[in-house]
Amino acid sequence: MILIDGNKISAEIKEEIALEVQQMKKRGEKTPHLVAIIVGHDGASETYVGHKEKSCKQVGFDSTVLRFEDTVTEKELLETVDKLNNDPAIDGFIMQLPLPKHISEQKVIEAIDPKKDVDGFHPINLGRIVIGLPAYVSATPAGIIELFKRYKIETSGKNVVVIGRSNIVGKPISILLSQKANPGDATVTLTHSRTKNLKDIVSKADIVIAALGQPEFLTAEMLKEGAVVIDVGITRIKSENTKSGWKLIGDVKFDEVSKKASFITPVPGGVGPMTIVSLLQNTLKAAKGEIYPK
Amino acid sequence: MILIDGNKISAEIKEEIALEVQQMKKRGEKTPHLVAIIVGHDGASETYVGHKEKSCKQVGFDSTVLRFEDTVTEKELLETVDKLNNDPAIDGFIMQLPLPKHISEQKVIEAIDPKKDVDGFHPINLGRIVIGLPAYVSATPAGIIELFKRYKIETSGKNVVVIGRSNIVGKPISILLSQKANPGDATVTLTHSRTKNLKDIVSKADIVIAALGQPEFLTAEMLKEGAVVIDVGITRIKSENTKSGWKLIGDVKFDEVSKKASFITPVPGGVGPMTIVSLLQNTLKAAKGEIYPK
Repeated sequence: MILIDGNKISAEIKEEIALEVQQMKKRGEKTPHLVAIIVGHDGASETYVGHKEKSCKQVGFDSTVLRFEDTVTEKELLETVDKLNNDPAIDGFIMQLPLPKHISEQKVIEAIDPKKDVDGFHPINLGRIVIGLPAYVSATPAGIIELFKRYKIETSGKNVVVIGRSNIVGKPISILLSQKANPGDATVTLTHSRTKNLKDIVSKADIVIAALGQPEFLTAEMLKEGAVVIDVGITRIKSENTKSGWKLIGDVKFDEVSKKASFITPVPGGVGPMTIVSLLQNTLKAAKGEIYPK
Repeated sequence: MILIDGNKISAEIKEEIALEVQQMKKRGEKTPHLVAIIVGHDGASETYVGHKEKSCKQVGFDSTVLRFEDTVTEKELLETVDKLNNDPAIDGFIMQLPLPKHISEQKVIEAIDPKKDVDGFHPINLGRIVIGLPAYVSATPAGIIELFKRYKIETSGKNVVVIGRSNIVGKPISILLSQKANPGDATVTLTHSRTKNLKDIVSKADIVIAALGQPEFLTAEMLKEGAVVIDVGITRIKSENTKSGWKLIGDVKFDEVSKKASFITPVPGGVGPMTIVSLLQNTLKAAKGEIYPK
């Protein structure tokens, strides 16, 4: 069994990005600049944005955080989006979700210029993924694809079972792995709460992507010997064995599944650390005009 | 076995649309207006556009065909798109494909205002389908969904196998049937040329959608007893038994598969006639501002 080390890979990629940014600066090119918008004082959102800011610094990006109280109006937020869309100094920006209930998240997301939508949430970026055109891929699916690449995990012709049909993980990773691409060219089955014979379906999978948000859902008994297991779940549970009093667990019963899998991502330290790296990669692509010509 | 009669259903839907258009006219509302752009003199394109024009007349729509020689420049075509985008008299328009090689189809498609993109080819409409937002669905997948509705074919929790991953059929129908919707909520496996164990996968399917463009590919031997079979293939082959000297056959070996299936679409007369109806439905939705508020 090979443990997929998201911390190691993400550190490597950050170094690669940092090197590239250094060279860009040497050539007198503009420093990539990411803006994060945060509304209100949600603890998890603060943590995420903090990590993103720190990661930007690590790789040499410029980074700005725009803070709004949760009394901000939709109009004010849309005006900010418009300003960022039209500011040539800003390569990409993200709207940290969730937003307060009086603001339409969808409306705000659709207001973002797709060229600067480094979170890959704009429908045009999702649609371009379906068609197979260059697009910003959202953080988690992009991180999974990157792990397949770095660990040289063959996906062509493999049976992939994705558990969970969320808009930001299950659906896009299903589409990506179905594409004529590498990684890709897999035979993908997208399963969800209405799936009737999940155990039977999972037992045929060469690769399982668990993204349903149900702690320790995937057990060894369900799995084919030697399957690749990607665990996207992150649930915080109480623990007496940690200083903080809680720990993170995934959608996979790691202790037993790891004995049967050929490759497996741990939680934490698997897919998680890859998500911020995906955002950095998208921002670099934006700065270089790789997805949409400048 | 129930033969799914696309001719009958499409005639019914045309009558329903005609009735609604009559009522719209009575209320003094604008008549829905579809424009088709055709470039060059491709025989198949002429036939399709001719059918579309005739169908518009049947339901009481206004319809215009804009013809260009295949020497038209991309710039001229983009200017025409821009004019139609901004013409409030036009509810929807379509660019008959293929376009001459010197013109980027993708660029022209992306220039169409998504609000008037009644062919559903713009990436934003595909992306909205992925997210589960209201969107124009392209003709063939929309026609299949309509047949499921009209024949009350249960899709929730069913194993659906789609054969063929084209951008206009395989991918969108896979996405639609995976959605939390009715029809939808199915467990969908998207298969293609790189799929290794297709026979095994198809043998588990409650519903098979054959859209690979390989005549009589799906045989009875591959199928589970009582499965629903949707045949999207249309291949023209020579025939001594028809006046014209050729006939249309599908991706399904109809004679034998029809004995094992619970529902089956014939070719011709199954999915085919539904495609124009989907276009009419999208145009009606455009006129009423159902997908995007006016």
